[in-house]
Amino acid sequence: MNISLSQASQYMFAAESVVITGHVHPDGDCLGSMLALFRLFQQKRVKARLLLDDEIPSLYAFLPDLHEIERPIEPIEADLLIVLDASDIERIGKVREYVSAPVLNLDHHISNTGFADYLFLDPLAAATGSILYSLFRQEGIKPDELTATCLYTAIATDCGFFRYANTTSDTLRYAAELLDCGVQPALVAEALETKPASNIFTLIHVLETLEIVLEGKVACVTVASDVLEIGESTDDFINYPRSIEGVEVAIMFKQTDASFTRISLRSRNVDVSAIALSFGGGGHKRAAGCSIASPLDEAKRQIFVAVASALEEVK
Amino acid sequence: MNISLSQASQYMFAAESVVITGHVHPDGDCLGSMLALFRLFQQKRVKARLLLDDEIPSLYAFLPDLHEIERPIEPIEADLLIVLDASDIERIGKVREYVSAPVLNLDHHISNTGFADYLFLDPLAAATGSILYSLFRQEGIKPDELTATCLYTAIATDCGFFRYANTTSDTLRYAAELLDCGVQPALVAEALETKPASNIFTLIHVLETLEIVLEGKVACVTVASDVLEIGESTDDFINYPRSIEGVEVAIMFKQTDASFTRISLRSRNVDVSAIALSFGGGGHKRAAGCSIASPLDEAKRQIFVAVASALEEVK
Repeated sequence: MNISLSQASQYMFAAESVVITGHVHPDGDCLGSMLALFRLFQQKRVKARLLLDDEIPSLYAFLPDLHEIERPIEPIEADLLIVLDASDIERIGKVREYVSAPVLNLDHHISNTGFADYLFLDPLAAATGSILYSLFRQEGIKPDELTATCLYTAIATDCGFFRYANTTSDTLRYAAELLDCGVQPALVAEALETKPASNIFTLIHVLETLEIVLEGKVACVTVASDVLEIGESTDDFINYPRSIEGVEVAIMFKQTDASFTRISLRSRNVDVSAIALSFGGGGHKRAAGCSIASPLDEAKRQIFVAVASALEEVK
Repeated sequence: MNISLSQASQYMFAAESVVITGHVHPDGDCLGSMLALFRLFQQKRVKARLLLDDEIPSLYAFLPDLHEIERPIEPIEADLLIVLDASDIERIGKVREYVSAPVLNLDHHISNTGFADYLFLDPLAAATGSILYSLFRQEGIKPDELTATCLYTAIATDCGFFRYANTTSDTLRYAAELLDCGVQPALVAEALETKPASNIFTLIHVLETLEIVLEGKVACVTVASDVLEIGESTDDFINYPRSIEGVEVAIMFKQTDASFTRISLRSRNVDVSAIALSFGGGGHKRAAGCSIASPLDEAKRQIFVAVASALEEVK
């Protein structure tokens, strides 16, 4: 059932105990939103727990209360399960099995499957963090500095630090207000950008795999399994093929193992979420992802066919 | 003489003809500010000319009216020479020789030498573009979409797309207002980030020169003369050593020729503008640059000594 933000707020604050979760492979929007909402419940003295069925990338170690996030390992009683930034029930992993409560979903992914009992969906919001900050504003609550930092991180990371097409004047206005709450944007950006020196060597390796195909309209890089094993963050590397002149679709292949390949897609105009969906993935029009249970070469072949056909359609 | 922004505005709009200039090695703030002010004068039907003693990087080709920018080659009569974003008379090159008019300088560099007849200096402004947009607001003028794009480019580029420490809530609020004037932030970001594929090979070459010295506190990359000759944009490459864990000062050396080296400096806390100044350069506390008329190895030696001593001081 689709509900308004004020209805979402009513459901949330009527509960006496809540569990907050987000999606596997958590990003800044997922984690920042989860932590900001958790801190709001704490402030309101409502019993809240944070559950996530995945590890937290060390990149986000600067966020407050991360240690409060638990892995789902046993049944949990609660009045409400709040699912943030996940568009599909599969994306919350084992959390669904362990929490038997009505589900309230706040999300901004247009691909949302409507799995929740109550859904507030704003596909025009740059981030789930923007939706949450709207909720703070609606409730007349000024976030403290650390909560504001969570919200700012959520918003800034999901719009590529205000460089992606989902950035609206409200996105920037919210960010401005969060700075007035004490956020230091350079500290957030530096924390997220700081990498071990070894990441530069990983980058060199990945850049050396650059391929430009389909008359220069498609560029891709590949993260081989031995590079993945090092455990370095490679998510941003797709920005390199993405920024090449004339490239319409950028792809990053990750050779998870000999028979499984993860694919990230970015585009200027082509709807890559449709391509990702056709392989069981999802995302946004210009940024999406999926997995293919095939070795790298076969996965590449399938993706190139799908991308070529999408490029044909926009011709 | 230091003046207020309203006084600056009075001087500017009292003139019947103006020349607008900026600094050599023009960046987004310099060019965006020059073009926005030019367009404002045009709207007010004041005779304005744009002069710049340097080439314009092709990166900025998306900005309007670039073709109006002339190189200084002959004397020009005007009531006022408006110098934007330049902190030192040397930085405007031959423009000073050819324009004999009182000089009005709008700038945000703390290192400003006070060379102008009239100076409005706001070292807290993230960009000269922010100062100019303040002026638009003060005059009650809503910029048209293209003028707003110039102002947005000026602001966004000088604060690293809102990631640097000079980003304030006003920086973001101004950016939000400029989006309301029609700026499409993703188009600006994409235009500035779009590079020929060859730039990725240049990046690989430069990253391979990475050196980490002074107990991991200093990281540097070197752009060799043969790489420079290709003419690729390499300015952003300093962000790679800058984002390495534990690095306090990042340096990029450019081997301009066998006996001349240009140096860019970035820091987390150390005042690198003081280091740059000691070699005749300038800039901001955390981002500065200078040149040394020595071969690469000697320039590196001198800079490492200066940086080591600056690091000692903050211990």
